[in-house]
Amino acid sequence: MSEEPVKYLLSERDIPEQWVNLLVDLPGDPLPPLHPGTLEPAGPADLAPLFPMGLIEQEVSPEPFVAIPEEVLAAYRLWRPTPLYRARRFERALDTPAHIYYKYEGTSPAGSHKPNTAVPQAYENARAGVRRLATETGAGQWGSSLAFACALFGLECEVFMVGSSYDQKPYRRSMIQTWGATVHRSPSDLTQAGKANASHPTGSLGIAISEAVEVAAQAPETHYSLGSVLNHVLLHQTVIGQEALAQMAAAGEEPDVVIACVGGGSNFGGLAFPFLRRVLRDGARTRFIAAEPAACPTLTRGVYAYDFGDTVGLTPLIAMYTLGHGFVPPPVHAGGLRYHGDSPLVCALVKRGLVQARAYRQNETFDAAVQFARAEGVIPAPEPAHAIRAVIDEAEAAREAGEPRVILFGLCGHGHFDLSAYEAYLGGRLEDPEFSEADLEAALASLPKAPALT
Amino acid sequence: MSEEPVKYLLSERDIPEQWVNLLVDLPGDPLPPLHPGTLEPAGPADLAPLFPMGLIEQEVSPEPFVAIPEEVLAAYRLWRPTPLYRARRFERALDTPAHIYYKYEGTSPAGSHKPNTAVPQAYENARAGVRRLATETGAGQWGSSLAFACALFGLECEVFMVGSSYDQKPYRRSMIQTWGATVHRSPSDLTQAGKANASHPTGSLGIAISEAVEVAAQAPETHYSLGSVLNHVLLHQTVIGQEALAQMAAAGEEPDVVIACVGGGSNFGGLAFPFLRRVLRDGARTRFIAAEPAACPTLTRGVYAYDFGDTVGLTPLIAMYTLGHGFVPPPVHAGGLRYHGDSPLVCALVKRGLVQARAYRQNETFDAAVQFARAEGVIPAPEPAHAIRAVIDEAEAAREAGEPRVILFGLCGHGHFDLSAYEAYLGGRLEDPEFSEADLEAALASLPKAPALT
Repeated sequence: MSEEPVKYLLSERDIPEQWVNLLVDLPGDPLPPLHPGTLEPAGPADLAPLFPMGLIEQEVSPEPFVAIPEEVLAAYRLWRPTPLYRARRFERALDTPAHIYYKYEGTSPAGSHKPNTAVPQAYENARAGVRRLATETGAGQWGSSLAFACALFGLECEVFMVGSSYDQKPYRRSMIQTWGATVHRSPSDLTQAGKANASHPTGSLGIAISEAVEVAAQAPETHYSLGSVLNHVLLHQTVIGQEALAQMAAAGEEPDVVIACVGGGSNFGGLAFPFLRRVLRDGARTRFIAAEPAACPTLTRGVYAYDFGDTVGLTPLIAMYTLGHGFVPPPVHAGGLRYHGDSPLVCALVKRGLVQARAYRQNETFDAAVQFARAEGVIPAPEPAHAIRAVIDEAEAAREAGEPRVILFGLCGHGHFDLSAYEAYLGGRLEDPEFSEADLEAALASLPKAPALT
Repeated sequence: MSEEPVKYLLSERDIPEQWVNLLVDLPGDPLPPLHPGTLEPAGPADLAPLFPMGLIEQEVSPEPFVAIPEEVLAAYRLWRPTPLYRARRFERALDTPAHIYYKYEGTSPAGSHKPNTAVPQAYENARAGVRRLATETGAGQWGSSLAFACALFGLECEVFMVGSSYDQKPYRRSMIQTWGATVHRSPSDLTQAGKANASHPTGSLGIAISEAVEVAAQAPETHYSLGSVLNHVLLHQTVIGQEALAQMAAAGEEPDVVIACVGGGSNFGGLAFPFLRRVLRDGARTRFIAAEPAACPTLTRGVYAYDFGDTVGLTPLIAMYTLGHGFVPPPVHAGGLRYHGDSPLVCALVKRGLVQARAYRQNETFDAAVQFARAEGVIPAPEPAHAIRAVIDEAEAAREAGEPRVILFGLCGHGHFDLSAYEAYLGGRLEDPEFSEADLEAALASLPKAPALT
């Protein structure tokens, strides 16, 4: 029994040297972002005040692969390649014939997959002579990752942290500060957007985005940085799936189904796109499941339409599944999944039936996470707990079918800063909030005017 | 530059299959623990009410190597081998010609080296038919590690957590509960020792030990488990140093100096003993530095004498450097280093000049830790921050000497649960407490009657 390996490790020489650009292989017409006033496609010039040209080129690249700069590879070596695990103890606990594999991104300094894109974003900005990056953060995963990356490349970093998280997650805040960045409670009195919302008790990701964008737009030496949704962010994350491909080959297995949680889509895209490329190019028959919270059911209850990327309407219009940019999901602990929209790339794949979406309630995801932690040791963040819930469903289906199906899922981060939620769950005090149907209806009624999507 | 490797990884097949028993090679006469009443050597029978025979045999083993059971190896595979890093960015930040390597144990599920011994302790107890383990924990590293190990082997686990930590570190408490263990705030009303100290505002490690020992002594199906100090605990930790030996060989270098922090001694022993064995057997010329807090300077200010292992005087007498079992160190954040004594094995090596001890103040260790975090990414726990302070001193000495000395240190855990201390340090609010000379004098005056040590 114990002779069977549980980890598939790669050496530093096996870190991928290019990113996979799935945009090139996406079926259907391209759906570029639109300027909200003219409804014309938004071009590189529209993005230049916020992003360096190196990232804008990646955002619209027509190449199937994009080379990873040497300086980025050098920083990746601090924690990459990440391990792929065979969850043998979890399989036994579930009494399933399925073979369950997970790609674990929690070994990065910030504890999640986010540094995979924070590092190239900091690098491209430093190369362009930018002195400071401004960003927002919800639960703090993204803010801490960008703070870490800025420390590596000598950039200043200013993080607007959603007020409720700032108050409830002081450890994530201290992590950001330890890496040398500045954290502001949002709404702050440093921006017009903050002052206009000064009375908001908890703040929101929408307000925090507006504050960071405002700071970046007004100061030429400051740029803005986003941790998900955009094409270049998903591009950077494809190091995950490329390593997983090599590791699954080392294990001598082929996944029947690939599962990851979706908030803005960068974790899902990072794991799935290298596998999806083989489906689109080579006809591989892999299934893909995107797991999201029932409290913020973008892919399962949203409409496919052009909408703003932020709550207050400062961004170009994006073609995606959306609950309406005014939709405010109830406060589930998976803060990284509380977004009204999703990456256009991931949404297009769902629209075309290549990816299946499933929504799960908060308590059933924590139940899955505790089962996993007691079998495998790792305590998952609340976001990948959604993927684990879907894994359990698939493992049960394999048992009923009597088939040794191969399941691969993304464990995108550890839960070291989410243990108060575990305590509430174990004490029977964790809420299982539902969104208001009336709020969803109202948010969907206020979508911006734009061409319909089919 | 970036072509140079920063990590030295091993495969699962390279996990050591035996532990290194340095007891056999220790110079000088053996100094067995003594029964406090008779002052006769305490034998296996004295330990049998608390520990299973498998561990007692390891405690006194005359063999230079002890085979690691197959079931323990299977569990080690969940996180071992751990990586060895070359800290190239830290070297550049320090502008030193020294080559700095660190063995990182923070990738274990509990985030430190402690599971290396928690797993074999849980295994030997489960094999002996024990149903439940009782233990104490200070900051929570040990309690969470034993909870994890008990989950793997189907044991119940009861943790008495020092009251002040229970109140201040709710996340460590929740981690223990997530793995299925029960946590009691100590002093509790479950034991005589707890009731007798009910009015103690913060509790202490001494009271918590007494509570756990009392529970174990009274219930035949319950045993006691200790996370450091004892020979078998240090034995288990030697997987660290054996892997580091192989990884340094892969790097093609030989350490001039090996550095680790010392609380009870298990982290230091785990890294250093396989290297010390080569000094004792083969005449290798490696220096060893044990880093401890100036607020609890056991090795640098204690006396070498027989003393109780716990504060209230329930244990056999142990030959060690001690500040007196009644000494209560001021509340530095490195909770794992706040112990009045140290492992007899480590103390004997210090006494014989094979290991040099150095004491550091709290603020200078956090200064070192922040420098390290901004260069290498990993945020260290407060305990290994003491080792990093010593590394900086050695790196500066190498620069002054103009020599590319090779430094290896143990980074025994991450600081994810210690970020409030970082916040205090960065805000200029971290205390830098000194112990009271009068308290030390009083504690040393109340050492138990026992033969003198030379």
